[in-house]
Amino acid sequence: MHILIIGAAGMIGRKLSERLISENALAGRKIETLTLADVIAPQAPAFAGKTVLETVDLSLAGEAERLIETRPDVIFHLAAIVSAEAEADFEKGYRINLDGTRYLFEAIRRVHEKDGYRPRLVFASSIAVFGAPMTYPVADEFHTTPLTSYGTQKAISELLLSDYSRRGFFDGIGIRLPTVCIRPGKPNKAASSFFSGILREPLSGQEAILPVDDSVRHWHASPRSAVGFMLHAATIDLEKVGSRRNLSMPGLSATVGEQIDALRRVAGAKAVSLIRRERDDNIARICEGWAPGFEAKRARALGFVAEASFDEIIQVYIEDEMGGRL
Amino acid sequence: MHILIIGAAGMIGRKLSERLISENALAGRKIETLTLADVIAPQAPAFAGKTVLETVDLSLAGEAERLIETRPDVIFHLAAIVSAEAEADFEKGYRINLDGTRYLFEAIRRVHEKDGYRPRLVFASSIAVFGAPMTYPVADEFHTTPLTSYGTQKAISELLLSDYSRRGFFDGIGIRLPTVCIRPGKPNKAASSFFSGILREPLSGQEAILPVDDSVRHWHASPRSAVGFMLHAATIDLEKVGSRRNLSMPGLSATVGEQIDALRRVAGAKAVSLIRRERDDNIARICEGWAPGFEAKRARALGFVAEASFDEIIQVYIEDEMGGRL
Repeated sequence: MHILIIGAAGMIGRKLSERLISENALAGRKIETLTLADVIAPQAPAFAGKTVLETVDLSLAGEAERLIETRPDVIFHLAAIVSAEAEADFEKGYRINLDGTRYLFEAIRRVHEKDGYRPRLVFASSIAVFGAPMTYPVADEFHTTPLTSYGTQKAISELLLSDYSRRGFFDGIGIRLPTVCIRPGKPNKAASSFFSGILREPLSGQEAILPVDDSVRHWHASPRSAVGFMLHAATIDLEKVGSRRNLSMPGLSATVGEQIDALRRVAGAKAVSLIRRERDDNIARICEGWAPGFEAKRARALGFVAEASFDEIIQVYIEDEMGGRL
Repeated sequence: MHILIIGAAGMIGRKLSERLISENALAGRKIETLTLADVIAPQAPAFAGKTVLETVDLSLAGEAERLIETRPDVIFHLAAIVSAEAEADFEKGYRINLDGTRYLFEAIRRVHEKDGYRPRLVFASSIAVFGAPMTYPVADEFHTTPLTSYGTQKAISELLLSDYSRRGFFDGIGIRLPTVCIRPGKPNKAASSFFSGILREPLSGQEAILPVDDSVRHWHASPRSAVGFMLHAATIDLEKVGSRRNLSMPGLSATVGEQIDALRRVAGAKAVSLIRRERDDNIARICEGWAPGFEAKRARALGFVAEASFDEIIQVYIEDEMGGRL
């Protein structure tokens, strides 16, 4: 079996590669070839099978064709520029997040038209396809009215994925990831960075800034769950999914206050004392447009699983990023 | 004021032109120039102001720019290939219905970036953005999961329209038209053709074929209402519409049986006897994927108005297409 990961150098892409390599199989089939593609050169993993590293920009002519001519059985499409960048650079956002995705889908369609090639395609979508006002919890049938260009590009890609799947060009499934928490690494410029920061930094004895009120409610899943969604999406029986191929993934709806309570239970009051409240009206306003949580009934019924408590999300971070101990 | 109608040679485009010419004003401003554009040469109407006729294919390079450099104040974008053709010719559908629309939006954006040009843009969307299963009536917040490429292209255009409007490139509003009934003219190959045919042909003493059961429920508005939606959309205060710029228009939910009852009331049993029941399983199956009706709460609250009974829809046809008498 040949697996292609586009966007392999990103945080989820790396964790997905590691997991696939450690299992060395997908749906009971041995992985012969793993192609890791990204705009920046992906690092070579320690993999017993064949590894192909590709530096590609899907939005350039011929790049998607080059990837697809090797006929991967399963394609994970995680490549995107993030929300803040897509908002700051309108043209780049549409070029990378929309045109790049469409070129990939078109490259697959052209091979399909020739000889019936029909890979499984797992697309990383986002809860950014939704925009306020939203009722809580958001139902599976709620409309996608994004309030960012990034969310618009993801929502359009979802529509294309459904239509290309309906036409039989590929077997597509789009999974709307919750905010991934706790992200490993350093704080970044994303407005959502603090959701991870207020846990990650105190767990390492460092100060973190909380720019919003404790009452802010949001929708979370761990990196481990995100990878789990990808693998389940790659192997699930799509007959059961039917024509509505884009699914809001399960997750945990929690307020910032509930995140902090979990931190106190797991790491103690000293960790909590490292959170410094410093309100940022701009970030607080952006948060108001975000989803507080989803029913995710369909995804749960289809076997997608996420954490049930923030204690668990913190525990996953300690296990996967801190060697299992504080 | 300069008004541009793209798709002016179509049925709604012609009626919209006629109405604008007869009123010779929009929102109290005199119409100085009316530009009628279509892939087939539009006919010159009897208009006292300046008329410009343009034969254009928006999907060709430079065509949208050429239209936009004349800086129309209001743009009606009705151009599209129909559902059956978009389904039969995948590439043509995406080229005309998606790329053509995007090129138009991009042409406006480029002029906007230069000098702040920001026209009102009214986009003719469709209830085809929705796909079965649907509850009846469909709520304003119901998701768009189209089951055709045409519906996919309209749903994507809606998303682009919202994002371009949010960015301030133009003042866009998308209006999801119900099935237009009674369409004047001859039967066509659209699966929905019979909804008009079973009324139009008997009203002229001709036989019509009914391919589905009397219980089939669907969503209708007259051509006159469709034009009314366009004009209202062109003049409405968009502050009131907010960020969700795509609206399901009001209409009349009726079963085929209710259509026939109205025909009996308006034109008598003899007209009804001209309906020949000849089931077509293919058309019946297609109908199952269509919307039975909508709440259209937002559109109604914003002042969009449609017919309240099928008697009224038939009466509109008699007035507008038959000189007011049977």
